[in-house]
Amino acid sequence: KSGKSFSCKNWIWHAWELCKEDSNRVLFSLKVGLAVLLVSLLILFQAPYDVFGTNIIWSILTVAIMFEYTVGATFNRGFNRALGSLLAGILAIIVAQLGLWSGQVAEPFVIGISIFLIGTVTSFMKLLPSFAPYEYGFRVILFTFCLIVVSGYRMGNPIKTSMDRLYSIAIGGFVAVLVNVLVCPIWAGEQLHKELVDSFTAVADSLEECVKKYLEDEGLEHPEFSTTVMDEFPDEPAYRKCRSTLNSSAKIESLASSAKWEPPHGRFLHFFYPWSEYVKVGAVLRYCAYEVMALHGVLHSEIQAPYNLRITFQSEIREAASHAAELVKVLGKDMSNMQRSMKPSLLKRVHSSTERLQRAIDMHSYLLTSSCEPPADSSSRQLPRLSSTFSSTLCGDLPNQVENVEENGGNSGTLHLARTESYHENMRKQSRRMHSWPPRAMDAFEEEGGPSADNLPRMNALESTAALSLATFTSLLIEFVARLDHLVEAVEELSKLAKFKHEGL
Amino acid sequence: KSGKSFSCKNWIWHAWELCKEDSNRVLFSLKVGLAVLLVSLLILFQAPYDVFGTNIIWSILTVAIMFEYTVGATFNRGFNRALGSLLAGILAIIVAQLGLWSGQVAEPFVIGISIFLIGTVTSFMKLLPSFAPYEYGFRVILFTFCLIVVSGYRMGNPIKTSMDRLYSIAIGGFVAVLVNVLVCPIWAGEQLHKELVDSFTAVADSLEECVKKYLEDEGLEHPEFSTTVMDEFPDEPAYRKCRSTLNSSAKIESLASSAKWEPPHGRFLHFFYPWSEYVKVGAVLRYCAYEVMALHGVLHSEIQAPYNLRITFQSEIREAASHAAELVKVLGKDMSNMQRSMKPSLLKRVHSSTERLQRAIDMHSYLLTSSCEPPADSSSRQLPRLSSTFSSTLCGDLPNQVENVEENGGNSGTLHLARTESYHENMRKQSRRMHSWPPRAMDAFEEEGGPSADNLPRMNALESTAALSLATFTSLLIEFVARLDHLVEAVEELSKLAKFKHEGL
Repeated sequence: KSGKSFSCKNWIWHAWELCKEDSNRVLFSLKVGLAVLLVSLLILFQAPYDVFGTNIIWSILTVAIMFEYTVGATFNRGFNRALGSLLAGILAIIVAQLGLWSGQVAEPFVIGISIFLIGTVTSFMKLLPSFAPYEYGFRVILFTFCLIVVSGYRMGNPIKTSMDRLYSIAIGGFVAVLVNVLVCPIWAGEQLHKELVDSFTAVADSLEECVKKYLEDEGLEHPEFSTTVMDEFPDEPAYRKCRSTLNSSAKIESLASSAKWEPPHGRFLHFFYPWSEYVKVGAVLRYCAYEVMALHGVLHSEIQAPYNLRITFQSEIREAASHAAELVKVLGKDMSNMQRSMKPSLLKRVHSSTERLQRAIDMHSYLLTSSCEPPADSSSRQLPRLSSTFSSTLCGDLPNQVENVEENGGNSGTLHLARTESYHENMRKQSRRMHSWPPRAMDAFEEEGGPSADNLPRMNALESTAALSLATFTSLLIEFVARLDHLVEAVEELSKLAKFKHEGL
Repeated sequence: KSGKSFSCKNWIWHAWELCKEDSNRVLFSLKVGLAVLLVSLLILFQAPYDVFGTNIIWSILTVAIMFEYTVGATFNRGFNRALGSLLAGILAIIVAQLGLWSGQVAEPFVIGISIFLIGTVTSFMKLLPSFAPYEYGFRVILFTFCLIVVSGYRMGNPIKTSMDRLYSIAIGGFVAVLVNVLVCPIWAGEQLHKELVDSFTAVADSLEECVKKYLEDEGLEHPEFSTTVMDEFPDEPAYRKCRSTLNSSAKIESLASSAKWEPPHGRFLHFFYPWSEYVKVGAVLRYCAYEVMALHGVLHSEIQAPYNLRITFQSEIREAASHAAELVKVLGKDMSNMQRSMKPSLLKRVHSSTERLQRAIDMHSYLLTSSCEPPADSSSRQLPRLSSTFSSTLCGDLPNQVENVEENGGNSGTLHLARTESYHENMRKQSRRMHSWPPRAMDAFEEEGGPSADNLPRMNALESTAALSLATFTSLLIEFVARLDHLVEAVEELSKLAKFKHEGL
């Protein structure tokens, strides 16, 4: 943000921070300088100047326009430039011949009409979605065609003009590609890999942060949502990263399409490396991130489950979330190291902790509904029914899970009572605090009665359904875990196609 | 999709469809053709050629590079081009003078070093986030500087060279801007306005579609999520539109930054029109759309509330959703017509229908929890307590709402009983169907026992918490409505700043 103030000292400091953060920027800048310098030498020294002449300016133009950040993008631009120039050259020669045949009077008309047609057709083509990646190529066709035809008309010999232009463009393109590939190349594939791995970390961190905040902030008054809806949430760095993950689809797609142009390099050594799978994994990860966004929405919602209710399920929620986050992190780490580890056991652990959360919610669901009498007196009567339901639904379970249930079933009587008690105790505290608040409904109606139409009525949430907000939070968490299955699957697919090595092999 | 097959007939048909859909594309293409034709005329006719000479090719290059889709973007590019060329010209003259002073031997070194420095500095600057909008300008500085310095060195007289280049660029820019503004201008502001209005419609439609599907599909087997997670959902056109709204932030931002360059035009007649507010409204709308995405996630989740439970609350859910969708549509329509209507009454209606939904859920929340005995026998005992709670929390209500509650209170006995009965009746039907399903847990364990490690274990959802999925759905719907407050506020703010006229004035 300090860069915005344009105070010079701030700005330099800001630029310096950026350099330290990403030395590739500096590298890229130096490479551009080197490339233009190399091309300029061809005209600055006498010997090459005698060979090439002033046409070499076109090489400078080509380098300046073609030099892109990553190798793949430079190849892509170079391809566009080369094919565009070639097509333009061919078209220009045809039109120039047509002009010559049609006689001196008709020639300007032929050329004018052809320029209009080429301008119209290339502009139309580049707007078509299927040709969008070649947008630059169409631009090149247009201006190269115009330049050759027009200068051919005035200076004669269009074939020589186009040839001169083509070879100087070729020299420029050659220098740009050489410098880009040979001097500390910045590979789009590497960037894409890093970007995706970072997204995994961002989603995992954001989930953990969100759950931590949900269980932590007793007594913390949530600020009005209006002030926070578009806020940067300065105390939630992971959330911001996760949100930027949601908007990174365009970046990932462009990196992937650049990466396809790159030869095998670095750690990505086989041909036809499945870069498009990265886009797919990114999309599935984004679907998981939507759930995190929804969880974040519940965290900052105006309708909140009371803190003591949240705390009742804290161990289950925390466990499920941390296992899920760990799985996401392991996936990210495996991607980062390009290895395949045995995910099924981890996934099973996530599932069983999620099931534990579901069971806990299920068993204490009366806490979520205000109209239901908390069965404090009838808990002993109700418990046998509950545990029998459990053992009937869970028969055929694996040993460790049965053990788990056994433990649950055995302790649930005391656990249940302890929970209920602490819940009621906390509820008393909370209700005292609640009564000191101004009743929400009154507020809203005062506003409505007011004379100013600008004061829009605010929704007044019924506090009684607030407890269901916890059910929402857990459902979203469970849905997140359900989507993890697909994330694991997508990563597996990628690992298979990209021939990641098995861990331990 | 048909364009992808590159069969010629298909492709032409596809292009033709696009033309019909958006005639602006054709218009734009014709305008580009016209602009390059006009510049070419300067060189094709003898009289202007005698005046300008071959330097006019630079005008053609400028038109081809500068001509953008919208007026604002063209202005922006033109500004970049003009300022970039000017700066490059000044720098080039300084360097050329330095070169001349330093003597014939040192001159190439001075020029070489300056080219390297300019290349490095401009490339570094354009990567800084605060200069990102001027990326093109830095490119222009680089190649213009190189061209002038190098050709000045070889042809002498750098000042004349830069002047010649500057005026031909100016001519090109002038023609590009004139054609773009005078011949059927395509305004970025107009596009932005339309884009945002369309987003409102997309979100409203998607909400309605989602709720309709949620309440509709009895007996429809949900396909495995894995096949649908990345699916196009062909039967949900509104959802796809809504999803594209989520990814439109970049488009809206670039349109807004282009629109700032445009003079007052069409319906946007005052200076400093608040285009940046459009970005803010778009962001708030996107926050609402996240909730719709989450609702859609619940709709396609594997853990589903039984149909008869969903149908129990169908009138309330449908009413709340349709009122909310209507509000969003009205907001979109008001934006579209650039008027301010009295939203408070509409918003109040949305709130009251949402409250009705909350109350219904609250009253029948025992249905959502499997561990709670449905109080079929005790309903008469429980009802007085419920209605008294309502009248105490809602005292001071507006007449119409009190009436509402009265009605609720009066009928709730029978309503409640009817609901409970139909619920139990439906539940019997459902349980018969359920028993014919293979038990989910068994499936999962069979898979786990299997020898292949590739078969990842699938999460097995406990059916008992399925009912809470309905609570999630309604909570998300309620959260959507809560966010509508902020959407209304953002639109109000925009209306105020953009001086939309009050309806009826």
